[in-house]
Amino acid sequence: MNFPFYLAGKFQTSKTSLFIKSPFNDEIVGQTWMATNADFDYAIAQAEKAFLITRNMPTHQRAAILNQIANELEESREYFAKLITLESAKPIKYSLAEIERTIQTYRIAAEETKRIENEYFSIDWTPAGTNKEGFIKHFPLGVIAGISPFNFPLNLTAHKIAPAIATGNTIILKPSSSTPLSILALAKIIDKTSLPKGAISILPTDRQTGNILIKDSRIKKITFTGSPSVGWSIKNSAYKKRITLELGGNAAAIITPSGFSQETINKCVSGAFSFSGQVCIHLQRIYVEKTYYNEFSRLFVKETEKIITGDPLNKTTDLSAVINNDNKKRIESWILDAEKQGAKKVYYKKATGNIVNPTILTNTNNNMKVNSQEVFGPVVCIEQYDDFQEVINKVNDSPFGLQAGIFSDRLSEINKAFNEIEVGGLIVNDIPTFRVDHMPYGGIKDSGFGREGIKYAMKEMLEPKLLIKNTF
Amino acid sequence: MNFPFYLAGKFQTSKTSLFIKSPFNDEIVGQTWMATNADFDYAIAQAEKAFLITRNMPTHQRAAILNQIANELEESREYFAKLITLESAKPIKYSLAEIERTIQTYRIAAEETKRIENEYFSIDWTPAGTNKEGFIKHFPLGVIAGISPFNFPLNLTAHKIAPAIATGNTIILKPSSSTPLSILALAKIIDKTSLPKGAISILPTDRQTGNILIKDSRIKKITFTGSPSVGWSIKNSAYKKRITLELGGNAAAIITPSGFSQETINKCVSGAFSFSGQVCIHLQRIYVEKTYYNEFSRLFVKETEKIITGDPLNKTTDLSAVINNDNKKRIESWILDAEKQGAKKVYYKKATGNIVNPTILTNTNNNMKVNSQEVFGPVVCIEQYDDFQEVINKVNDSPFGLQAGIFSDRLSEINKAFNEIEVGGLIVNDIPTFRVDHMPYGGIKDSGFGREGIKYAMKEMLEPKLLIKNTF
Amino acid sequence: MNFPFYLAGKFQTSKTSLFIKSPFNDEIVGQTWMATNADFDYAIAQAEKAFLITRNMPTHQRAAILNQIANELEESREYFAKLITLESAKPIKYSLAEIERTIQTYRIAAEETKRIENEYFSIDWTPAGTNKEGFIKHFPLGVIAGISPFNFPLNLTAHKIAPAIATGNTIILKPSSSTPLSILALAKIIDKTSLPKGAISILPTDRQTGNILIKDSRIKKITFTGSPSVGWSIKNSAYKKRITLELGGNAAAIITPSGFSQETINKCVSGAFSFSGQVCIHLQRIYVEKTYYNEFSRLFVKETEKIITGDPLNKTTDLSAVINNDNKKRIESWILDAEKQGAKKVYYKKATGNIVNPTILTNTNNNMKVNSQEVFGPVVCIEQYDDFQEVINKVNDSPFGLQAGIFSDRLSEINKAFNEIEVGGLIVNDIPTFRVDHMPYGGIKDSGFGREGIKYAMKEMLEPKLLIKNTF
Amino acid sequence: MNFPFYLAGKFQTSKTSLFIKSPFNDEIVGQTWMATNADFDYAIAQAEKAFLITRNMPTHQRAAILNQIANELEESREYFAKLITLESAKPIKYSLAEIERTIQTYRIAAEETKRIENEYFSIDWTPAGTNKEGFIKHFPLGVIAGISPFNFPLNLTAHKIAPAIATGNTIILKPSSSTPLSILALAKIIDKTSLPKGAISILPTDRQTGNILIKDSRIKKITFTGSPSVGWSIKNSAYKKRITLELGGNAAAIITPSGFSQETINKCVSGAFSFSGQVCIHLQRIYVEKTYYNEFSRLFVKETEKIITGDPLNKTTDLSAVINNDNKKRIESWILDAEKQGAKKVYYKKATGNIVNPTILTNTNNNMKVNSQEVFGPVVCIEQYDDFQEVINKVNDSPFGLQAGIFSDRLSEINKAFNEIEVGGLIVNDIPTFRVDHMPYGGIKDSGFGREGIKYAMKEMLEPKLLIKNTF
Repeated sequence: MNFPFYLAGKFQTSKTSLFIKSPFNDEIVGQTWMATNADFDYAIAQAEKAFLITRNMPTHQRAAILNQIANELEESREYFAKLITLESAKPIKYSLAEIERTIQTYRIAAEETKRIENEYFSIDWTPAGTNKEGFIKHFPLGVIAGISPFNFPLNLTAHKIAPAIATGNTIILKPSSSTPLSILALAKIIDKTSLPKGAISILPTDRQTGNILIKDSRIKKITFTGSPSVGWSIKNSAYKKRITLELGGNAAAIITPSGFSQETINKCVSGAFSFSGQVCIHLQRIYVEKTYYNEFSRLFVKETEKIITGDPLNKTTDLSAVINNDNKKRIESWILDAEKQGAKKVYYKKATGNIVNPTILTNTNNNMKVNSQEVFGPVVCIEQYDDFQEVINKVNDSPFGLQAGIFSDRLSEINKAFNEIEVGGLIVNDIPTFRVDHMPYGGIKDSGFGREGIKYAMKEMLEPKLLIKNTF
Repeated sequence: MNFPFYLAGKFQTSKTSLFIKSPFNDEIVGQTWMATNADFDYAIAQAEKAFLITRNMPTHQRAAILNQIANELEESREYFAKLITLESAKPIKYSLAEIERTIQTYRIAAEETKRIENEYFSIDWTPAGTNKEGFIKHFPLGVIAGISPFNFPLNLTAHKIAPAIATGNTIILKPSSSTPLSILALAKIIDKTSLPKGAISILPTDRQTGNILIKDSRIKKITFTGSPSVGWSIKNSAYKKRITLELGGNAAAIITPSGFSQETINKCVSGAFSFSGQVCIHLQRIYVEKTYYNEFSRLFVKETEKIITGDPLNKTTDLSAVINNDNKKRIESWILDAEKQGAKKVYYKKATGNIVNPTILTNTNNNMKVNSQEVFGPVVCIEQYDDFQEVINKVNDSPFGLQAGIFSDRLSEINKAFNEIEVGGLIVNDIPTFRVDHMPYGGIKDSGFGREGIKYAMKEMLEPKLLIKNTF
Repeated sequence: MNFPFYLAGKFQTSKTSLFIKSPFNDEIVGQTWMATNADFDYAIAQAEKAFLITRNMPTHQRAAILNQIANELEESREYFAKLITLESAKPIKYSLAEIERTIQTYRIAAEETKRIENEYFSIDWTPAGTNKEGFIKHFPLGVIAGISPFNFPLNLTAHKIAPAIATGNTIILKPSSSTPLSILALAKIIDKTSLPKGAISILPTDRQTGNILIKDSRIKKITFTGSPSVGWSIKNSAYKKRITLELGGNAAAIITPSGFSQETINKCVSGAFSFSGQVCIHLQRIYVEKTYYNEFSRLFVKETEKIITGDPLNKTTDLSAVINNDNKKRIESWILDAEKQGAKKVYYKKATGNIVNPTILTNTNNNMKVNSQEVFGPVVCIEQYDDFQEVINKVNDSPFGLQAGIFSDRLSEINKAFNEIEVGGLIVNDIPTFRVDHMPYGGIKDSGFGREGIKYAMKEMLEPKLLIKNTF
Repeated sequence: MNFPFYLAGKFQTSKTSLFIKSPFNDEIVGQTWMATNADFDYAIAQAEKAFLITRNMPTHQRAAILNQIANELEESREYFAKLITLESAKPIKYSLAEIERTIQTYRIAAEETKRIENEYFSIDWTPAGTNKEGFIKHFPLGVIAGISPFNFPLNLTAHKIAPAIATGNTIILKPSSSTPLSILALAKIIDKTSLPKGAISILPTDRQTGNILIKDSRIKKITFTGSPSVGWSIKNSAYKKRITLELGGNAAAIITPSGFSQETINKCVSGAFSFSGQVCIHLQRIYVEKTYYNEFSRLFVKETEKIITGDPLNKTTDLSAVINNDNKKRIESWILDAEKQGAKKVYYKKATGNIVNPTILTNTNNNMKVNSQEVFGPVVCIEQYDDFQEVINKVNDSPFGLQAGIFSDRLSEINKAFNEIEVGGLIVNDIPTFRVDHMPYGGIKDSGFGREGIKYAMKEMLEPKLLIKNTF
């Protein structure tokens, strides 16, 4: 299958092919092309032109466009899910779930475009302001650049494209070079809407070519989801632009006595191993109150044993290959490294191909990468704690701060956790991996800058403008 | 001391004197006069005129007026506290606390006047709305009538007057005939502000004369605090006006195992007996989980025994006379009636004069007035419960629904209580008697209609007006 | 065609038939039945039961129900439009427009159910509140009664039903006895959703039987759209319930020099004669600045002459019969009465059947019913004004205050109009007849009490409950 | 007078003196000292410690601290005004006005601390979120660095310090080396409050030493007011911190036919020459509709002639010296340069000392610095325009975008200006120099990043944290 890139309303190729292989069996599943510097330059120029139209689009038109994308995606669920599975080895049931979330993401944007929050307030707090009142209206910025990762090829691009449409901005998206096919397939749907040509371009390329997005002053904002090192260097370079960074983490969950249950264990297993842990809010660290630690570990292993690995196109598969062999090697080396420093494998099996089997470690500490860095693999560390203050300190002893979970029925514990755990979001009685697409999402510390979640992503794509007028 | 009433900027008397006696020792503590029908008619006419000015007052002027009242009250704390104590037999330490709250009430209004919430929103959700946008601004209503009770003569009148000033309305206040002195003393402070004469009148009178406020079509809103029967009959008669009713209740607290502590007991004793229970959110019913019931009762009695009764002007007095002898008799007859139906006195002592001593009952049920009606006296029923659903049902088995308290550290219990207890407000880990003056306050069922708490009282004194304008 | 009424999930008949005739040709177009007292009693009991389910429905389920109604209506546009035209003589093109708006109304509710506004705020403004914080959540009330008029049989019932579903309440709707068919047809769609049986009943009946809704204490709120006299008497009787009244008006538009244009005239003709003026915000009074008065009148007549009258099922028909012969007679008598008092017919033609032709009057004043009462017919008064203050006074010289329009490019005029015109909504550079279904809609003075417009209707169907909890 | 710097609760000196001279007469008016690297390091460490207290301070305590500062400033108005005048040559009447605004700034913060906006919203938009709800609470960041300019030594430092206190952050302020005295005097007031020692340090120093604030990772946010070049380089360096930049501009006003009046002229003269134009929103460019251009210029000159120059301590003085001789030379060279390129002096007089007299130019264009760069002197360019689109383009033809003014009574012009002028704020019927301290304030393009105005500055000093909890 060929997937030309989407350049300002045209589907085009370049001299440089990009062949996409299945991470599961290394077979080529599709072809696209690398956009050139000239392509990016053209895309930006056309996006600027299209912006003259999109900035003044009524909200009913923006909403209609977004709903049209959602509707057509709804009608081709299986097609798109299969594409995701082919390019990413995501088990088909999770790919189907991603489609549902992507539909939801576009629909939320269709609703939020009508609800951009303006302000209308009094100015006459001092005699100088007598007979004046104030208004704040939010205006789109212009051309936005979106850069997205491999793990949710449709939903994480939706979190760039949908808010851009909803706010009247235009956008140039650079998808992951590993998984560009599904979003390029979606481009055909986008192309049928009433968006002016140029409002959206989707251009796979290498990092060096992509840098034009960082340097070009016509780009007003960059929204990036990916690795911390790349993210922060973008923010450094593009210091005059608005920047949103959604980076990684080593998310933790705390299991207190009043939060221990079979349901808790099931949720934690899911958070630890879903899509091989290739999720920003993958549950990487579990801290269990010491009297429950053994029982928790035992039941956790029992549930882990039920996980079915194999071909991602198989409906019963729970876990398949990681994105590529380099990553498999990296994950395995991190496990090895942890063992050398004293970590103990609670559950581990060698796997063939690019699959990494669910791995449970204990006796880890934050000198080990499996504990303190983002493992982005199906690896979880289960540790015990004694005192509640101690476990909060452990959760915080990390360069990252994306999300955390706490299982507890104690208000005092929940309050303390919310006051003290350094994260963007704390999930009570659920795993840190919990995300619905309208909620504010993003991390602090090295985990990111700014928030996504449609309404919040939209805010960061808008500039408030004040109007003060006389009232008489 | 003579306190003429305050009629549209003038301090006046009438042919009918009203002598105010101390509930503690029946001595006359001051004199005022009953306003006549003609006085009310004049007050309304002048309030309408003054409204032409107040409606357009800049917020800095409204704030300055409200702060001036607060400042002057601050400088005469003792004078006003003593007046309250003289007219109501409120122990002086509680009168001083009321002054602090009254100051706070006026200050909050000074701040909220600048923050009346307008709206600015999109209209173009369908093609019909293209190039239009919407605004909502809140306009004052005109002349408001306030009717207030005896128990907080300064702070409950502040909850009528302060939001009226803050919203640019004008107001005619009918204070309680038992306790009109302190608010008439405050009128002298109000009179010194830059409010136009007529913006505020304070007119004690009998109920029949007061009815003009209900019938006159120039009055746009009535805000009433007092008894349920009077309140609801006002709402029936004045069906074309806006109405806020703050009526009574038989507030309950639930003591769960995780909420049991000495601090809990201290708070409950305070909620049960402060100002002889003459408080709308007086703690009348306490439900203790059965394994803690005996210990709770024992410690509750122990704390109750520490209460000092006597002359309200004495700084150490905790509890003094109820408002009048009729009420003393009523309360005692309710206790007697409860006993006849099987209630048991846990703690009870006869008292002299108009004092009713702290009374603790058990074995009560909602056929007894002490349990199901508003006792407005220092009487509390302590009962045990077994199951959490059962106690929620008991709390709800009441015609009233003002506030309730729950002492618990269990999130699941707190959630259930919040979802199911039928009240205006639920206080977690504190007594239902908890109130700060900026919070929304008011009940459902027979306990009232609408909310006070400055910001919320202001909302009910404003009319939203929509403006739709074209954007090009 | 037979349309049994919809009683708690069952389609039923009674002993009393109700035959619906076309206002255009008096032919019977359908039959339904009058619900009895027992039916209402049963409906209320079942609505109470269903409420135990609806109050806890997640918002995604509420939204799905509302969207399902919208989707199915979308697929049967023509069927429903034809039904409306048959029962009401609404020209088919306007019936189709009503269907579009009804779909939009349900869709807005599907969105707003997810966005019920809660509050989360600080309590520690004084030492008493230290370490506490406050929350306000909005809870549904229970069983609601909706009473709706003949003129928008689907969209005005949607403004009762949709917010009730969106808030988790249950509702018993009494539709107009003139036009119950289309909403009973919609009941078949509603019945297919996952709403529990009893959540919605639609019961045509006579006014006397309908009174049970006013008297029964199980009904927590009444939302009424109809005539002022009936509306206010309901509010008087049902004084313990929440009440929303959407009543009538005699809406005015002001044409200033800077607002004069052909487009202005076209809009005004539409506002004056659409659906024979049987619209609450029908444009009844036009005030034109005197130097533009003659030209305005001339062009207004010219446009009026283009109006095509006749069979409402004909696609080109602009105007057909009024709702019944009594109303035709009433309208004609009002015109005659005005003439006797000095009004002059600028444009008038006798019409056959129940049609009343577009009628333009001048020299009217507010002693004439055509000017000061709600004419609810295709009659408009065009008058001139000299001074801007004068025209504002004229607009305000009315018992009503629903909406007004001003055509002007002058900020100072717009400001003055917004500050001084006594209405629920002012429309700048458009007619007072402007309404989109998400905007706040409702009048002051005799025109009503409270607001509709989905978000605003929902607010009036919810009770705020305060939660205060400790933060440590 | 000696003013030691304020280091974590102690007033200290260093080896390096900093003598402050009056810009008007070059006399030394006071002495302070340059803080060292070690001082900054200590200040940061102590600020981190103090943060452990300030982050948990109840809002009533924060408000009390802020009001105490305002109260004491109120009692020493003349003293502080004189200090400002001495160090900056600001005419005493403007210094007194700055004191009033500074008091207001602290008072607003005292109010806003209680109103930090949290969110409470539904999560159950999809089945995954069933029985969950979401909360957003805003937490302080930690240690903030503030860097402030010479022109409003008390009020622009208040816009850093007050929101820091109000949000529970701690702050290290580096004041302008030209005008550090008044803020160091204020430090004595701050020191008397209940803020923990270390919560605030005020440390004058040279730019190189100040760079520690940019590099130190313990500083979480920098709020900078000053020149564009410095501001943007800070943002580049400190890319991991939150940054607010309030930089300069070349603000414009548009005078349309319907906005022409004597009052307009008076306002423009004030905007052009107040404090010698040393104001970020100094009115630098005036565009007058061509038919009014000559009359406007004539009357503008007439008003300008009334300006009294001289000793800033003299109560009648309108205009005195610019901040230093370098700036006088720079301004004069810019005027000269403009003349060489064809600009014409409409009004100009040589002045002695460091005074620059009011200067009116015309025939300027954006190749001239006086037009396109920030002149920060008493220089204004008055130009004519023909077409409304043309004048909008001219206003936008600037690297800056802080505020603009439009004098017009035409809604269509105001709408177009608001939609198209690229600024942070548009002031209708007033000068771009308009600012009240609670309004959002800040520019786009090269004029800045983010917003101040207490509520808005506070938002940028807070991190939102999400809490999701189950509801059952």
